[in-house]
Amino acid sequence: MKKETFGILGFPWDGGASLGRPGARFAPQGIREAYKWFENRIEDNQVYDVDKRKLYTLHENSIIDYGDIDIVAYSTEKTFANAKNKVTEMLTNDVFPFVLGGDHSISYPIIEALHDNTEGKIGIIQFDAHLDLVDDSPVQGKFSQSSQMRRAIELERISPEHVVQIGVRSFNYPWYANYLNEVGVVQYTARDVHSRDPKEIISEILNDKLKEVDYIYLTFDMDVLEPGFAPGTGANEPGGLTVVQAFSMLEELYDKVDVFDIAEVNPLYDVREITTSIAAKIMFECAVSRLSKK
Amino acid sequence: MKKETFGILGFPWDGGASLGRPGARFAPQGIREAYKWFENRIEDNQVYDVDKRKLYTLHENSIIDYGDIDIVAYSTEKTFANAKNKVTEMLTNDVFPFVLGGDHSISYPIIEALHDNTEGKIGIIQFDAHLDLVDDSPVQGKFSQSSQMRRAIELERISPEHVVQIGVRSFNYPWYANYLNEVGVVQYTARDVHSRDPKEIISEILNDKLKEVDYIYLTFDMDVLEPGFAPGTGANEPGGLTVVQAFSMLEELYDKVDVFDIAEVNPLYDVREITTSIAAKIMFECAVSRLSKK
Amino acid sequence: MKKETFGILGFPWDGGASLGRPGARFAPQGIREAYKWFENRIEDNQVYDVDKRKLYTLHENSIIDYGDIDIVAYSTEKTFANAKNKVTEMLTNDVFPFVLGGDHSISYPIIEALHDNTEGKIGIIQFDAHLDLVDDSPVQGKFSQSSQMRRAIELERISPEHVVQIGVRSFNYPWYANYLNEVGVVQYTARDVHSRDPKEIISEILNDKLKEVDYIYLTFDMDVLEPGFAPGTGANEPGGLTVVQAFSMLEELYDKVDVFDIAEVNPLYDVREITTSIAAKIMFECAVSRLSKK
Amino acid sequence: MKKETFGILGFPWDGGASLGRPGARFAPQGIREAYKWFENRIEDNQVYDVDKRKLYTLHENSIIDYGDIDIVAYSTEKTFANAKNKVTEMLTNDVFPFVLGGDHSISYPIIEALHDNTEGKIGIIQFDAHLDLVDDSPVQGKFSQSSQMRRAIELERISPEHVVQIGVRSFNYPWYANYLNEVGVVQYTARDVHSRDPKEIISEILNDKLKEVDYIYLTFDMDVLEPGFAPGTGANEPGGLTVVQAFSMLEELYDKVDVFDIAEVNPLYDVREITTSIAAKIMFECAVSRLSKK
Amino acid sequence: MKKETFGILGFPWDGGASLGRPGARFAPQGIREAYKWFENRIEDNQVYDVDKRKLYTLHENSIIDYGDIDIVAYSTEKTFANAKNKVTEMLTNDVFPFVLGGDHSISYPIIEALHDNTEGKIGIIQFDAHLDLVDDSPVQGKFSQSSQMRRAIELERISPEHVVQIGVRSFNYPWYANYLNEVGVVQYTARDVHSRDPKEIISEILNDKLKEVDYIYLTFDMDVLEPGFAPGTGANEPGGLTVVQAFSMLEELYDKVDVFDIAEVNPLYDVREITTSIAAKIMFECAVSRLSKK
Amino acid sequence: MKKETFGILGFPWDGGASLGRPGARFAPQGIREAYKWFENRIEDNQVYDVDKRKLYTLHENSIIDYGDIDIVAYSTEKTFANAKNKVTEMLTNDVFPFVLGGDHSISYPIIEALHDNTEGKIGIIQFDAHLDLVDDSPVQGKFSQSSQMRRAIELERISPEHVVQIGVRSFNYPWYANYLNEVGVVQYTARDVHSRDPKEIISEILNDKLKEVDYIYLTFDMDVLEPGFAPGTGANEPGGLTVVQAFSMLEELYDKVDVFDIAEVNPLYDVREITTSIAAKIMFECAVSRLSKK
Ligand SMILES: [Mn+2]
Ligand SMILES: [Mn+2]
Ligand SMILES: [Mn+2]
Ligand SMILES: [Mn+2]
Ligand SMILES: [Mn+2]
Ligand SMILES: [Mn+2]
Ligand SMILES: [Mn+2]
Ligand SMILES: [Mn+2]
Ligand SMILES: [Mn+2]
Ligand SMILES: [Mn+2]
Ligand SMILES: [Mn+2]
Ligand SMILES: [Mn+2]
Repeated sequence: MKKETFGILGFPWDGGASLGRPGARFAPQGIREAYKWFENRIEDNQVYDVDKRKLYTLHENSIIDYGDIDIVAYSTEKTFANAKNKVTEMLTNDVFPFVLGGDHSISYPIIEALHDNTEGKIGIIQFDAHLDLVDDSPVQGKFSQSSQMRRAIELERISPEHVVQIGVRSFNYPWYANYLNEVGVVQYTARDVHSRDPKEIISEILNDKLKEVDYIYLTFDMDVLEPGFAPGTGANEPGGLTVVQAFSMLEELYDKVDVFDIAEVNPLYDVREITTSIAAKIMFECAVSRLSKK
Repeated sequence: MKKETFGILGFPWDGGASLGRPGARFAPQGIREAYKWFENRIEDNQVYDVDKRKLYTLHENSIIDYGDIDIVAYSTEKTFANAKNKVTEMLTNDVFPFVLGGDHSISYPIIEALHDNTEGKIGIIQFDAHLDLVDDSPVQGKFSQSSQMRRAIELERISPEHVVQIGVRSFNYPWYANYLNEVGVVQYTARDVHSRDPKEIISEILNDKLKEVDYIYLTFDMDVLEPGFAPGTGANEPGGLTVVQAFSMLEELYDKVDVFDIAEVNPLYDVREITTSIAAKIMFECAVSRLSKK
Repeated sequence: MKKETFGILGFPWDGGASLGRPGARFAPQGIREAYKWFENRIEDNQVYDVDKRKLYTLHENSIIDYGDIDIVAYSTEKTFANAKNKVTEMLTNDVFPFVLGGDHSISYPIIEALHDNTEGKIGIIQFDAHLDLVDDSPVQGKFSQSSQMRRAIELERISPEHVVQIGVRSFNYPWYANYLNEVGVVQYTARDVHSRDPKEIISEILNDKLKEVDYIYLTFDMDVLEPGFAPGTGANEPGGLTVVQAFSMLEELYDKVDVFDIAEVNPLYDVREITTSIAAKIMFECAVSRLSKK
Repeated sequence: MKKETFGILGFPWDGGASLGRPGARFAPQGIREAYKWFENRIEDNQVYDVDKRKLYTLHENSIIDYGDIDIVAYSTEKTFANAKNKVTEMLTNDVFPFVLGGDHSISYPIIEALHDNTEGKIGIIQFDAHLDLVDDSPVQGKFSQSSQMRRAIELERISPEHVVQIGVRSFNYPWYANYLNEVGVVQYTARDVHSRDPKEIISEILNDKLKEVDYIYLTFDMDVLEPGFAPGTGANEPGGLTVVQAFSMLEELYDKVDVFDIAEVNPLYDVREITTSIAAKIMFECAVSRLSKK
Repeated sequence: MKKETFGILGFPWDGGASLGRPGARFAPQGIREAYKWFENRIEDNQVYDVDKRKLYTLHENSIIDYGDIDIVAYSTEKTFANAKNKVTEMLTNDVFPFVLGGDHSISYPIIEALHDNTEGKIGIIQFDAHLDLVDDSPVQGKFSQSSQMRRAIELERISPEHVVQIGVRSFNYPWYANYLNEVGVVQYTARDVHSRDPKEIISEILNDKLKEVDYIYLTFDMDVLEPGFAPGTGANEPGGLTVVQAFSMLEELYDKVDVFDIAEVNPLYDVREITTSIAAKIMFECAVSRLSKK
Repeated sequence: MKKETFGILGFPWDGGASLGRPGARFAPQGIREAYKWFENRIEDNQVYDVDKRKLYTLHENSIIDYGDIDIVAYSTEKTFANAKNKVTEMLTNDVFPFVLGGDHSISYPIIEALHDNTEGKIGIIQFDAHLDLVDDSPVQGKFSQSSQMRRAIELERISPEHVVQIGVRSFNYPWYANYLNEVGVVQYTARDVHSRDPKEIISEILNDKLKEVDYIYLTFDMDVLEPGFAPGTGANEPGGLTVVQAFSMLEELYDKVDVFDIAEVNPLYDVREITTSIAAKIMFECAVSRLSKK
């Protein structure tokens, strides 16, 4: 996978947060603000990674902020069309889309853009406390933060067995028992992550579960983390991942994925910008990892 | 106007808060919680008003909570239809609707219900920092928190001269200059309220401006108050009314209006439930004022 | 009334806050902390009053902190006995007790101490949103924040007509209608304060209502203020006094009273120490007013 | 142990929080609110456990909310009598009591109820940062949040060697050195938990330490967790358990215990309902674990 | 006074906040953020003033943001030199400086710039709870938030009688009694403002007190307002001005002053951006008032 | 190393927090407040360590609070001179200085005091997310929170190879790559701590890296911890140490160090005193460990 431009795209939409808490609309602004702290370390296109004891040299002008998707507040349909168009444009121009949601509903139009602009199989790696595989509901409809994965596997070249969920936990609707059995989505529960080596899980995913896919879409729902580590998100699901587990798994993926979105960061519920700074750190690590000249 | 049942109806919708802050969806729950503090003073259908040094006796079972309007989170249209139906049902049954928004967009379907279930002229008294007379906008559409008054005056028997805005202030779009001139909406700016006797203003409204209307719809946007007095709302507009000014005007209206809504209470931004307690106090004063046997 | 020592006494008890919010136990510490801001202006026993354009010279060592009353957390009886003893000791030594509650239940043992250590009639001036005249209740008992005034008027030389309540408002239990009629407590409602000259009210109280009493006990329940001005208190009662109204009335009383308590400051609910700073300002103004050499 | 009804009982008492922070009185309401998030996943008496990949079928109407214990705010004695009566009633009716405190003093009347309504030996498993074995103190008395375990081991059939404390840490009064030596309470310190396999500890407790008891009382003081994970509690004791450690140990106990209480959840100090959601999750897991048909 | 360019200049310095609270460094960013809410109402250089019922047409590009003064965090001297240079540059280019502090120490270098770039007498109008006339102190030195007015009257053409302080209150050091007598600074205390017509005070200042000056410097310390109205500031001084009083006085001054600064806005202590929105409103009103074509 | 007096010294300076957040000036007060919780467990100079199951007997009057360093707010130079003098005095009197910052700039004058009052080699152990080795910067100068370690290694008997940084992480300026290579500072990154046994790291430091030094200075920057565990600090750097890791390493050092400072505790950003309580626990553990009679 070649080194493209790293394109930051804000998707300030929380119209799909119909069960949880509103406020993810403020995430792109919040994450960008926190991102300055990291970006400030770049001088002459170089930055030093303390943990890896390594100097990275980036391409000139390789991190570009594409602004925010035009929100049409009263219409999911129009907003999602705008999103799909924008991401299509980035993909066409060999720009790597790093998308800042928004509630988790935002993933679907972006996945659709990747799907419709490529050929071959697409795998999805989803970090999430939740499954987001609800088909439809009277309150939430078909395009909410609970349904984007269901919509995704309805796409032609996205097979359920190529959807990998990491960090899922807690309880869910009983129909999931049969559904999951039949559909074959791959799950590494939070319990699995706590009891195994996180890097080994990623290795198993890349080398086994997704070894046949041509593209990988990575979506990171911030609620995959334990609430105490990341309070600014859409729901409390105790028993979540530590920041260290998440970073450890993500760094094996930064170079391997074709689109990346972070969803469910909610600055209205955040504490001291802790959660936006985690998102910003992920964005920066991903950029540095992808862009540095080898 | 006879004493009907006082019907509390929650309208937990903030899908129209497309410029301001989300969170008004939590207002009905928050106001109801604060309301218990006041309601707890009723014993055997009686309550004592300290300020007026007066004992009120209410009708048996005259305050009834009709629950919340069914929200269809992904569809303004369906949600507003649910709201209109519910309010229609209440009006048909001689129930006085006291509606707890929600962002200010919620007024329109309720106004429409009043309009379509009555004959004769309807006047509207709107307490608000803002005008909410925007026709349409690419981001907000036609049914947002900025447009409900525009939609209202498009209804057949609601004349702009029968729309009275109290507490409006600050700056607005330049097209308002001509528009207001032409359309003839009545305005008592915040500045007017600060420099006149509030009760006299209400008297002027009832006896002059609205003397020809058959019904009065009262909508109270919490942002009409100075932010320091009511922080839990959709936007800061310094220069607003005091709580005492608002209460003083409202008490002249409780008995005179046919529908009442409180909008733009936002518990996500509230401080120590101060704002929800103001809304609850208004609801309780209105109920006591309307229901007590003379 | 001669210039005694000004004795600060903490009463960190919120065991009587059985309907409202706990946390008044932290008030003495919070008020003392805020008080440093004012006290710091004293140099060589002198301080300049900016508003009055006047230099005050205090007696040497005339403001003394007597620490906190020993709290016996599990026993109202023992705690109140400790309080009564301590205040008795101060009164015996010609120390003016300025008591920092605590929820409003704290007033009773202090009133009792004044009563039992004096002869002649005692009047009480109570700034409060509430009446606190409940006799007994299954949940709160007879010595809660709702009953201390009832207990006070049961004392031999405290006549209900010599109890003056300022700022009372909102709704209360229906039995109050008859009770107030019969018992003859004097009330200046919040509405009265808003519509009259505050200083004139105080003048009427001192020269008329309480002209026959020998001692005056002043109790200031912080919830007499509008919640936006003083959020750190036990309950929200919108429609309250402004800080300026309260200060204006209090300054006519500082020199005239024999014991002063401030109750229902609740730092757990305060915002930026706003409420504790109001209490501290009152304490300092009272001290300066009483102690300065004429 | 057969599957009884799972009875939720609120015990909104913080009169025993005489050293720590008040506010645990709001815990039952807060936990119930957070519980809705989990309960909402039940459909037709079934729920799917994502972590265990297992469908649970509950008995019809097997989770019943018994409301709150009647609080007599001014009397520990009367309140505790009410509690003991209520729990006795539940035990008599084969209802499993899941009690929501309240500060930790609430455990004693419930333990007493279990003790007085059973025969045979009772063991207690206490998750706590603290020991709560204080006999008496001038400020706190004998029935505070620091003494309930001392009171418990004074009961006839509760031997100190059958009291197991998990997660205890930090410093304590010097008399504890001798006392602990003599009395023989079993302790797994936080340090022990951090350095051993948590499940193995529970196994050791069930199969060895408590192998002779006939009944097990489980009390979970929320401060056993690290403050960053559960800020809404009565005191900060850094060095605590992780949420994952706690869940891992608790799930081995849900089926084995006869009464369960959660204490020291304090919504006044909570952040974004993180702590109440942990309590609610424990309650739900316990219910599902106990009630599901095998 | 001709209509110049309106130049916004940030001065994010709180190195002078040596007695009060740090955080005013964040004010320029916060005020600019809040300002967008007002600025958004401008279309085609026009904006409608709701309170005045008037359409304003601004000059093209007449509001220009000059960014922030370069802060040299470790040196008051260097930072103030930067400030003086920047303001000198603006004055030289006929730009009206609207400066966003910073703690109140920031006024001095700006006053100095006005002084050194003009001839003739300069008057200063200072809205403040405090006097800020301290000469020197061991902790604060000579250039803190407590001394900038003292430094100002040491300048050649700034006479103490041309310094007008509005809203001063509370207590201060005893040496102020003599000092104020001697030096002749003009004061309208908070008490004066509460008891007189605010506009009349301004008229008296412009037509009498400052009738001989050639230039007017206006400095607005946010703590002049009552803390409940503007919590985000450097100190609590209860008894302050209302927002309405302040706006009413300021609007008489917008056109009459030569430099304007707002100081002591402190976003770290603000609540819901209430205080920054007041500052932003003042900035916008000033801009509209000065820039509109007559 | 003999058991000296344990001297607590506050250093309420945040003038060096020129990139990060102000507020560390409030840390000494906050930590002392939190410390009371732990100190309260001492009776008759004894305290029981629950985790270690051990009774400690302290020397009489061995923990002494030396108050705060005199801050000269406008001058780093004067403030640091005061600090150096004060610490020199403590060292001369065989008092162990436990210093409560302040931002991290405070370490330099204390290190200098140790250096200038001893002979022989000095090693430094620095817990920190950051390197703090910046030489100079236009904004921060040479004595900020980013430079104190650079200043330290300029001292004659402090060799860079004797500076050990623990917990460093994230990204930094590119010049660090060469600089670190050349200068030879020892680093155990956060990643190292997460993947190794923390106690083994300390053992390696004491027995190998610092085996030749005569004195050890320990500085603990609170941001070494994961933000969710310690929110009240100067910057968010996700990926940090757990509290348990930190405590585990520190307890191996308490007896081995000659001066100890805790920096970057920031109560303005803290949540429920969580962070100050961690600092207080460290202080207490250090005191108990050093002072107890063996
Ligand atoms: Mn999701
Ligand atoms: Mn999720
Ligand atoms: Mn509105
Ligand atoms: Mn509005
Ligand atoms: Mn009261
Ligand atoms: Mn009250
Ligand atoms: Mn406990
Ligand atoms: Mn505990
Ligand atoms: Mn000032
Ligand atoms: Mn000031
Ligand atoms: Mn550092
Ligand atoms: Mn650091």
